[in-house]
Order: sequence, then C-alpha cells, then structure tokens
Amino acid sequence: MALIVMKFGGTSVGNVERIRNVAARVIRTQQAGHRLVVVVSAMSGETDRLLTLAKDLSSTPNSRELDVLLATGEQASMALLSIALEEKGHPGRSYTGGQVRILTDSAFNKARILEIDKENILNTLDEGRIAIVAGFQGVDQAGNITTLGRGGSDTTAVAIAAALKADECRIYTDVDGVYTADPRIVPDARRLDRITYEEMLEMASLGSKVLQIRSVEFAQKYHVPLRVLSSLEEGTGTIICDEDENMEQVVISGIAHNRDEAKLTMKGVPDKPGVAYKILGPIAEANVEVDMIVQNVAADKTTDFTFTVHRNDFKKARKILEEIAKQLGATEISGDERIAKLSLVGVGMRSHAGIASKMFGALAEEGINIQMISTSEIKISVVIDEKYIELGVRTLHSAFGLESTAGK
Amino acid sequence: MALIVMKFGGTSVGNVERIRNVAARVIRTQQAGHRLVVVVSAMSGETDRLLTLAKDLSSTPNSRELDVLLATGEQASMALLSIALEEKGHPGRSYTGGQVRILTDSAFNKARILEIDKENILNTLDEGRIAIVAGFQGVDQAGNITTLGRGGSDTTAVAIAAALKADECRIYTDVDGVYTADPRIVPDARRLDRITYEEMLEMASLGSKVLQIRSVEFAQKYHVPLRVLSSLEEGTGTIICDEDENMEQVVISGIAHNRDEAKLTMKGVPDKPGVAYKILGPIAEANVEVDMIVQNVAADKTTDFTFTVHRNDFKKARKILEEIAKQLGATEISGDERIAKLSLVGVGMRSHAGIASKMFGALAEEGINIQMISTSEIKISVVIDEKYIELGVRTLHSAFGLESTAGK
Repeated sequence: MALIVMKFGGTSVGNVERIRNVAARVIRTQQAGHRLVVVVSAMSGETDRLLTLAKDLSSTPNSRELDVLLATGEQASMALLSIALEEKGHPGRSYTGGQVRILTDSAFNKARILEIDKENILNTLDEGRIAIVAGFQGVDQAGNITTLGRGGSDTTAVAIAAALKADECRIYTDVDGVYTADPRIVPDARRLDRITYEEMLEMASLGSKVLQIRSVEFAQKYHVPLRVLSSLEEGTGTIICDEDENMEQVVISGIAHNRDEAKLTMKGVPDKPGVAYKILGPIAEANVEVDMIVQNVAADKTTDFTFTVHRNDFKKARKILEEIAKQLGATEISGDERIAKLSLVGVGMRSHAGIASKMFGALAEEGINIQMISTSEIKISVVIDEKYIELGVRTLHSAFGLESTAGK
Repeated sequence: MALIVMKFGGTSVGNVERIRNVAARVIRTQQAGHRLVVVVSAMSGETDRLLTLAKDLSSTPNSRELDVLLATGEQASMALLSIALEEKGHPGRSYTGGQVRILTDSAFNKARILEIDKENILNTLDEGRIAIVAGFQGVDQAGNITTLGRGGSDTTAVAIAAALKADECRIYTDVDGVYTADPRIVPDARRLDRITYEEMLEMASLGSKVLQIRSVEFAQKYHVPLRVLSSLEEGTGTIICDEDENMEQVVISGIAHNRDEAKLTMKGVPDKPGVAYKILGPIAEANVEVDMIVQNVAADKTTDFTFTVHRNDFKKARKILEEIAKQLGATEISGDERIAKLSLVGVGMRSHAGIASKMFGALAEEGINIQMISTSEIKISVVIDEKYIELGVRTLHSAFGLESTAGK
C-alpha cells in the first residue's frame, strides 16, 4: 500500500463534469490499494476572475488582502471535489492551507513553505478517507492567509509529499509526460519514461512548460519521485527522480526551446574591470531578469557585451542600457527581439565529449547561424534567429537520434 | 468615539461599483469619529452559484464540505472591501470566521455561535484600522469551517456587537427602515424611528423580511441597539432597542402579513386526551413546522383540528394527515393553500383593551371573513382568504391611524 500525492490543475477541475472525472480517477487509484492526498488548484479562469475584481478596485491591491481573495479559488475546488467523492461513496475531507497547517513566511503573493503539520492529513488517511488539500496557499505564524504565487499548487503537492515521505507525487496536466522535444514541432518526439531532476530543471527553465521549476527543485531537495501524467488519458507518464547509477546512461534527454527572450548588445564598451557590474546592476535594480550573458574578448581596448532578457522587458532594458552607454562611453546599442534559444539537455553529456561540436555541426549543415552560446554541465544552449527555431529543434532531434533511443 | 458594527448584505457588495460605494460609506462613518467593524455577506448571486455547483455534483452534498464551499463567498467580499478601503487611504484588515475566531458548534449549515474571540478585532481597531469580518461563517472546536445558515451575516454582526459591547449594530439593507406596513401595499405607510425587539420579532416572524429573526433575538438577549437603514441612501433608519419606560406608548406599531402559509383541517376527530399530540407528532417528525393551531370546542364528541404550515410543506403534511386520520377515525381532511395571515403588532396592546374587537370589526366592515385567530401578548393574527390580503392590510393600517401617529 503506497502513499501517493495526486495534484490536479485548474483545467482538470474546470467544471462539474471534469471534477467528476477527477473524482473517478482518484477513486480508481484508491481502489488500486493506495492511500491518497489530493491537491487541487482553483477552477480554470477563477483566479483571473478574482484578480480582475481586485484590479478594478485598485491598481495595486493590498497584498495581504489579495491572498485572502485568491485563496478562495482553491478552497472552492477542494470542497467540490470532496462533495463529488462522497457522492460516489468515497468520503474525503478537505483542508485549506491554514487547516492543514501549511506554515509559510509572510511574503504575501509569493510565500515560501516553512513547515507542514502532518497530523490532520494522517488522521484523515487513518480514517480511510481521502485527504484533499487546497494548493497554492498557506498561513503565516500570525494566522494570515498567504499564497505561493502562480503555479504554487505544484509546490504544495511536492511539499506535502516530502513531509509525508510519500512514495510518489503525481502531477496531472494536459500533456501525458515529458518529451524529447515539443511534439508540435517534432512529430516523432518520444515520451521519456524517466528523466533526472537536473535534466527536468534545465528543460523547465529552457522553456518546456510542463512543471513549475520551484516544485522540481523542491522534489530534488527532498528526493520526492515526481510523475507527470495526463489528467485526461490513462498512462504512466514520465517519472522525474534521482539519477540511477545502474541505469544505462543516455547522452541526451531532450531538446528544449524558448521564444520568450530578446537580445541586447552594447558595443564598444571600454574593457575595464567592473564594467559588467556597471551594465547589469541597473538592469537588476529594475527587476529585469537576465538569462544568457556573453562578453567577447577585447579588441582595440573595447569589447562587446551581449545578454538576453524576457521579451516583455526588452524595451525597458534597452532604455536603461542607453543611459548606461552614455556614462560608459560605449559606441552603440543594438537589440533583437526576434531570437530564440535552442538547447540540448542530458546528464550523459558530462561524460561524453564532442556533443557541442556535433550540435554546432548539425546546425551549420542547415545554414543556421549561431549568435550566442551558453553551457552548463548538462546542457548547451544557443541563440539563433527565431525563424529557424522549428528547423533547429528537428535538426538536433534527428542528429542525436532521439526518436529511436532504446528504452530509456 | 463610538464603537459601531456595520453590516452590508450581498446586494450592497454585488459588484465593484457597489463595493466602492460601501467603502465610501464606511469611510464617512469612520470620519464621523467612530471605531468600526464591518461585516459583509457574499456578493449577491455568489452563494447561489456555489450551491448550484455543489448540487450538480450531489443532490445531498456533504454538509461539512458545503460549508467549506459557501464560506468562500464572504471571504472574497471581505478581501475586496478591504482592498477598496486601502485604495481610498483607509487601511482595513479582513478576518474569516476562523481568523477572528468565531467559535460555533459543529452543526454544519446551521451552526450556532458559542464564543467570539475579541483579540484580533480589538488589536486591529487599536492600530487605527477598520476590521472587516466575513459574515455567515465560523469555525468549530476541531477547526472545521461552519456556516450559520442563510441570512447568518446579520447574526454575525449582532454577535460581534454583543461581544465587543458595541454602541450600535447597523444593518444596511435595500429598505430604509421598518415600516408600519409594507409600503408596496400601503402607500402612506410610515417609517418607524424606533421599535422594540419584541415588536420586531413579531413583525419578522409574521412576514416582514427586513431582518433575520435570529439576529433580533440575539440583539435582544445582549441588549445590542440594532439599526436598520438603507445601503443606498443616507438616513437614520429604524432603531430596534429595549422598551423605554419614559417613551410615550404607541398602541400599535405595525401591520405584518404573510402569504407563505397553507391551512389543513382534520374534521370529526374523536375528542379524547392526546389527540393533538397524535396529529402533530408525525408532522413534527417529518420536519414540517406548524405555525397557528386552532381546535374548536367539541360537538357530538368529535372536534375539528386546524393548523397552518409553510406552503411548501402543504402536500407532504396533507399526506401524513391522511394516514393519521385513518388511525384516529377522523371523518375528513380539508386543506387550503390560498390563505394569508394578517397581524397587528404592538407592545402597547398589553395595556389597551378592545384592540381585537376593533380589528375584527374593521375587517368585517370590508366583508373579510376571519378563518382562524391566534394571539400573543403583543400581536393578534388572523387567517383570511389570500385575495383579501392587500385590502386587509390597508383596512387595519387606516383603522388604527398608523399613517398619522405622531412621532413615535
């Protein structure tokens, strides 16, 4: 008898019919002999509806009160799921973040979980009931309602799984697992049976929107086996877990891509110590996140400095950069919003030479120019012209034989 | 500096514009120099929307979970009002029933308040903030969310006012006070400046739907001055308070009427001890509430037994009665769904003879037949044919000179 945490997102509980389907899925899992904790998000559209009401009243709604407001979404979902389970003869018991008690810090709208009280959940399971917990929310030391920020329900699920030392945390989504590449671009992309936390983190941060990064980090930290699977179809999905020494190593797990970024270059920057800080300091102060950074070797005592930001921040960052350029005496600012990032991810990369050259060669053969390169232990990312992104993904997928890799 | 509890119903907070108006009203009251606790209901329509979702999932939704679901309505309202107040520079702080802590028993859907913790509210007031509390909800000893039943927000407001020994509890509604009769029927009905708890209780239970009976009982028990006033217009409304010895007594305060009842008669019942119990026992067991009961004097060793029930329970009660009639050997069951109850209410009635005969005389003059009569210390009710109800109300209003009574 395993202890399993199941998490259903907003789309999965988006209406009465879907809530019934979730109840049926939960009951089948219980009937397979498992003890269950179910974490739910707000019904799809509900959080946006509530946010709109708040924004209509204030352009900067009080953050404590916003959390009080948003927390109602998950509270309604959990009660409805519990009602649906009871109707089918499988009694549940629902808990808000405060009732569980999921203790968080007091950073409203983006609180961090500090501690989870297991007592109420364990008592519920011991009574033979299904425990249903509101995702996304907690309570601070003073009893204020807090929320974990968008997508926080995944984090709730993983944190509960960690606290209860659950055998598995299952995240039900609108895809049936993690793929070697986006199946909309690569029709023969293959669903992975397993992937390591590290690989998943790289995939997630590189643009595969299957899971929230924070929840994967949490799962990695507490060694919670995390399974991504479809809320609509049966299937085993993809399990995300620690690297298994005995498992035959596959070099590359998948290809990630991302069209959300834009590139900015400052040319003719005097090549002196502290220049990078002088450029990026004001950018960070403006709350603009920087992703890739490349500085070319100096020629003629000046250098070119290039970095990428989220496309939404492009104009803001460019404006700041123009100010800095004047101060530094840089010659020119250039920018490009039509770029894309293409990445190879795989823990096997660590022990295999020649991955990078194979990647660059494959892209060159298709005439795809590489504008920037960035690497980590388990990934290589390149920035290319946006118009080549689909071709790039397919080229790499095929070059590394991902469609045919035997049973990872 | 007075401590005032203000309560706004669902219509008053029904949309963003109305919430803004409530915020403005609250701020004006604060600026008049008062310390404020504001109790809010769910936005109008919200409770029904949630109930429909629950009923779609189960014809008999689990009562604990239904309370978890419904409690979200008031939680959203209180957060929105708090956001609106902060936007106007008057910070509030919202509290759910559990956060206040409004301790109730565990009778889900119809819980009773046992105790109110004053600490959080008083701390909030001491910080110069407006305390905003979710109406209608509480929490039981085990931490489960409970609700007080429909209209329970009035009860929350009065209970908080009682706990804090507030100077006044103001209930904002869609009418601007309590009238001598329904102004839709009697155009020259007069708004009362004051009315006693007892009179209000009779008025409420006899069909004037201004206030919830429970909240008036609560106010009476703890001597909380209760003021009913319009949420749309300025005005002093009607204050409901203890009887004032120095106040010149008015004989009749108002005329109440009620079309919700139906009448059932069992004819030819053997006139033996215990017969009333044998008839009403099974009715009560079926959860049918009985209002007026009349038993005529026996003739020929049998008697007629008549009572009224809510119109919705008429068919159910009739069916039960037919069963009982067989057992008792009664001769006939008759029923009438088209009746109405007409009542005179006034504490002054106690010391004035001749009120009943004046009432009956006025009705007779208009050809209105009286089918049943029931009296208490401060009211006289009669059952008449439904079609005469407007005429009856107007006749009594005029016969007792209510439109012209000088400054009660």
